[in-house]
Amino acid sequence: MKIILSLLLFLLTSTVANAETTVSAEIQYIFNTFSFLVCGFLVMWMAAGFCMLESGLVTTKSVSTIVVKNIGKFSIVAIMFYIGGYNLAYGIPEGGFIGSFTPWTPNDSIEQGYSGSSDWYFQMLFVAATCSIVSGAVAERIKIWPFLIFSAILGGFIYPISMGWQWGGGWLSTLGFSDFAGSTLVHACGGSAALAGVILLGARKGRFSAKGTVKTLEPFAASSIPLTALGTFILWMGWYGFNGGSQLALGTFEDANAMSKIFMNTHLAGAAGCVTAAIITRLIGGRTDVVMMLNGALAGLVSITAEPLAPSPMLSIFIGSVGSLIMYFGTSLLNYLRLDDVVGAIPVHMFAGIWGTMIVALSNKDTSLSIQMIGILSVCTFTFALSYLTFYIIKQLIGLRISSEAEKLGTDTVEIGVRAYAIRD
Amino acid sequence: MKIILSLLLFLLTSTVANAETTVSAEIQYIFNTFSFLVCGFLVMWMAAGFCMLESGLVTTKSVSTIVVKNIGKFSIVAIMFYIGGYNLAYGIPEGGFIGSFTPWTPNDSIEQGYSGSSDWYFQMLFVAATCSIVSGAVAERIKIWPFLIFSAILGGFIYPISMGWQWGGGWLSTLGFSDFAGSTLVHACGGSAALAGVILLGARKGRFSAKGTVKTLEPFAASSIPLTALGTFILWMGWYGFNGGSQLALGTFEDANAMSKIFMNTHLAGAAGCVTAAIITRLIGGRTDVVMMLNGALAGLVSITAEPLAPSPMLSIFIGSVGSLIMYFGTSLLNYLRLDDVVGAIPVHMFAGIWGTMIVALSNKDTSLSIQMIGILSVCTFTFALSYLTFYIIKQLIGLRISSEAEKLGTDTVEIGVRAYAIRD
Amino acid sequence: MKIILSLLLFLLTSTVANAETTVSAEIQYIFNTFSFLVCGFLVMWMAAGFCMLESGLVTTKSVSTIVVKNIGKFSIVAIMFYIGGYNLAYGIPEGGFIGSFTPWTPNDSIEQGYSGSSDWYFQMLFVAATCSIVSGAVAERIKIWPFLIFSAILGGFIYPISMGWQWGGGWLSTLGFSDFAGSTLVHACGGSAALAGVILLGARKGRFSAKGTVKTLEPFAASSIPLTALGTFILWMGWYGFNGGSQLALGTFEDANAMSKIFMNTHLAGAAGCVTAAIITRLIGGRTDVVMMLNGALAGLVSITAEPLAPSPMLSIFIGSVGSLIMYFGTSLLNYLRLDDVVGAIPVHMFAGIWGTMIVALSNKDTSLSIQMIGILSVCTFTFALSYLTFYIIKQLIGLRISSEAEKLGTDTVEIGVRAYAIRD
Repeated sequence: MKIILSLLLFLLTSTVANAETTVSAEIQYIFNTFSFLVCGFLVMWMAAGFCMLESGLVTTKSVSTIVVKNIGKFSIVAIMFYIGGYNLAYGIPEGGFIGSFTPWTPNDSIEQGYSGSSDWYFQMLFVAATCSIVSGAVAERIKIWPFLIFSAILGGFIYPISMGWQWGGGWLSTLGFSDFAGSTLVHACGGSAALAGVILLGARKGRFSAKGTVKTLEPFAASSIPLTALGTFILWMGWYGFNGGSQLALGTFEDANAMSKIFMNTHLAGAAGCVTAAIITRLIGGRTDVVMMLNGALAGLVSITAEPLAPSPMLSIFIGSVGSLIMYFGTSLLNYLRLDDVVGAIPVHMFAGIWGTMIVALSNKDTSLSIQMIGILSVCTFTFALSYLTFYIIKQLIGLRISSEAEKLGTDTVEIGVRAYAIRD
Repeated sequence: MKIILSLLLFLLTSTVANAETTVSAEIQYIFNTFSFLVCGFLVMWMAAGFCMLESGLVTTKSVSTIVVKNIGKFSIVAIMFYIGGYNLAYGIPEGGFIGSFTPWTPNDSIEQGYSGSSDWYFQMLFVAATCSIVSGAVAERIKIWPFLIFSAILGGFIYPISMGWQWGGGWLSTLGFSDFAGSTLVHACGGSAALAGVILLGARKGRFSAKGTVKTLEPFAASSIPLTALGTFILWMGWYGFNGGSQLALGTFEDANAMSKIFMNTHLAGAAGCVTAAIITRLIGGRTDVVMMLNGALAGLVSITAEPLAPSPMLSIFIGSVGSLIMYFGTSLLNYLRLDDVVGAIPVHMFAGIWGTMIVALSNKDTSLSIQMIGILSVCTFTFALSYLTFYIIKQLIGLRISSEAEKLGTDTVEIGVRAYAIRD
Repeated sequence: MKIILSLLLFLLTSTVANAETTVSAEIQYIFNTFSFLVCGFLVMWMAAGFCMLESGLVTTKSVSTIVVKNIGKFSIVAIMFYIGGYNLAYGIPEGGFIGSFTPWTPNDSIEQGYSGSSDWYFQMLFVAATCSIVSGAVAERIKIWPFLIFSAILGGFIYPISMGWQWGGGWLSTLGFSDFAGSTLVHACGGSAALAGVILLGARKGRFSAKGTVKTLEPFAASSIPLTALGTFILWMGWYGFNGGSQLALGTFEDANAMSKIFMNTHLAGAAGCVTAAIITRLIGGRTDVVMMLNGALAGLVSITAEPLAPSPMLSIFIGSVGSLIMYFGTSLLNYLRLDDVVGAIPVHMFAGIWGTMIVALSNKDTSLSIQMIGILSVCTFTFALSYLTFYIIKQLIGLRISSEAEKLGTDTVEIGVRAYAIRD
């Protein structure tokens, strides 16, 4: 009789123990893992988005080159993140500054809650996104291999170190910094690296006239607006995975709700960014600016990335809208400073990313503006300084900028030997 | 002893109660929610598909403009659906005619079976699809902002009201009308709005000669066939989510089977539509027509949308095939009537949508042809009338059609100031 | 009392029986089914990838034609696989040679572990991939309808028969051959069919000079490098579904881990292939070759397809890297033999596919190199012979190659009547 009672007790308590969630550890594990894979392929898709966006925005004579840089960097950083980057970030001691550059090893324990390979896959694609931000900004004048080498260093060392400060459980995380999916850790980081490159490389010849005006039409006209639009739609689609997957779990009632709210808020911020850019360019310039609308959507998406879960839908619209304004005026600021960012990567990713990280203090009560500022400043300064140094060393060793002749003829002809389009009427 | 017995009884009955499905409410909730998110991002992707399809089919001088319209409308309707559209449709009283234009509020209760945010996300993307149908039809002669304002009204008011009649539980639903994923509620609705615009705007200059023939080659040649093909493939991919997600659930044996059958039938109807268009254009015109094949696939997909679950695979092939024929002859009809639908949106979405809704009476025994006709007529008439009125008011207030000079030079040059392509050999 | 005890025993043993997995059969069923649908739409997406890749690599005057072939073949094989192909492969007797060409019928039993429709959907898209390999190789000189008829026969008969030898449980499977996701069954099969077509058709006029050199620039320049890049990114994305979905299950701890490892290994092999092609073209030719990088990534992906689960990440990198080298030298071999493969489909899919299948013997201890060679030889010989015969019969009956005039003017003008681009500056 006692045995029966204790058996019954066991059966009941095992039910009771599970009362808060009816989802067994294994089922949660499958949901979480599959969510990493699905969100992961969406983030992978962003690599195609950056490639299309940049192919569309550079001039026709540099399109093959931008393709080489995009697919090349995308491939290299995956290998770098495997051979050392992952552990440099996630092998960090609690509250520490740096992990160890050693190859990633799998961990598929049920206690971890998801397959280690699925986590590696998801995180690896964030590296690719970070490096994609750079290629557009420095396009049309940086040599191919110096760029690829820089990408390997940014993706294999610089990004993993500063990202580990937060997501690896390092000192920023201990301090109370908050950056849900990477407005600062990914976007402002990539933007800071881009800024270093843009400064060191100088502008394309003829981009800024002696009088201080900027030439945006011929000979600097975008090669294909529909490809730019395609790239933007792809990035927008990928962003659901970028932000949604950063919940890192799907297997409970709470996680499913969180991921849904993130999808919705992400969408609304992007939409608000696009509409804001449409209105402001129509009001100020008189013409609805197609590239600004596309970059406005992206700026909205970057802005919500630091905290896509806590804000209300209305606050998300506000955050995206202001992010778009910051991108708009930031673009003018760069032109004023004669910094030649070919696709507007710095205003979109760095400026809007900083804004998005700051405003977290408003919606997430666990953080403060001062700690958010510390996070932004430390990541941006660190990335900018090391990127500048890396670019500088590459420049001294093998050179950074293409020759004047190559710039005149186009890198497609000189460096690749394959023109991007052979369209004959 | 009695206690033990009653405990055992409790344990057994709780098992028995669950006998029809072994999936707990929470697990079902996660499946259903994730299915909304995955199917949702596929429907979002259709916005890129429309943008590419339309960019490819308009003439080169209107491509930047079509991009602005597509991304602009996509963004605006999301905000409109949040601030009022959702409740206008789903806040409708049972059997009623209209809900209330009030902001959407979240509902994440486990009893509902899915996260409210994931449902909003999925439904919001249907609004974007509806409005996308219009932009292609009225391309190349409508001004940007009048179009965007119309989209806001279509997506924020007209579509939600008539859609609520059925999916919100309104009078059509009570009557027994059946439209699984929206052959009528989305596609014929969008097509009716497009028809109103096409009539009010008139044809592009020179499109129809005095003799009644239609010019399809220069100067009206499609700017890029591969982008049109890309758009079609994107739409086809998105359609799995459009129809599959309309099952509204994934978390049981029955739901998983239903979603699978929907994916299969949807695919077969699209395939049949494409093959039918290839054969008929080869037989009648002598040349296999690439644009007709792409539109044939879309017409097949539209046709199966009203009932993708009940038909056998063979019946799905038949439905898609006839939908393609209707699209083919519908295109000729529009040309005969000198209605200038730039991308063929009306034959694809409205004509095939009506066919698809009528044929539901054959495969779904719970409905009848007469009730299907009532649903089609009421939604199309309502949408056409309100769209015509809206376009008319906009025309009187701020004008609808671009100037003759803008039409000659192209809207890209006149309205945007950015040409879509800068490809130099 | 005995009743109580036996009831308890039942309850406990039913728990114990489930001890190895806490996932009920129904939940596994939903996971497996949904995984087929998600991986399936990724494989469907590869059809768009092939279409973009081929549209980008053919010359401008053949782009509309390649679109017709891609969407046409994609549609036809779906119907063929429904009316007979599926049962030809999966209706094979154990250890046998051929099934029966009868229509597919649904099977949704819970014991099977997944919805039959979801399985059909997934497998049907593999047929489309196989046929896509052919269209790029024989582009620019094969007539439209002879190509479509060949595709129907390849997708409806040839591929299902040899694929059934392994995946349908036929003689190759009994022998111990191993080909996880189809390096041989799909890629080398498609490549063998392409080889037959390329031999029978002969090269494009002027492609090979009398001196034995090959013309790769004008007039054979690729129409659009960014579309080729887009196609490659799409294929890469789809490959996760292609390989990951071939695990055929997701609903347990082990399956989720397997799928994750497959995603990771697939990605690393593709990355290694791309980097290898970049380095070798830079070292040998002096110029980083954009098309070789894209094909190198694809060759890496093909190579890992025969066994994406067993290898370590480092071995995956090695496999992808060697696959890329084989593609590179294979391309030169074809040129030396004056075989005109427009997009490099044979080196990418057949040569790298054979390599990938051979190397399985290294990572998977359950197989041997000799048995792998038997599988490769039998599938390639069978496919090549039947494809050659089919092409030959079509040639005799209705002709295969376009006229000299059509080749000069382009098939877009002569066969379709719609030029692919109408871009005016």
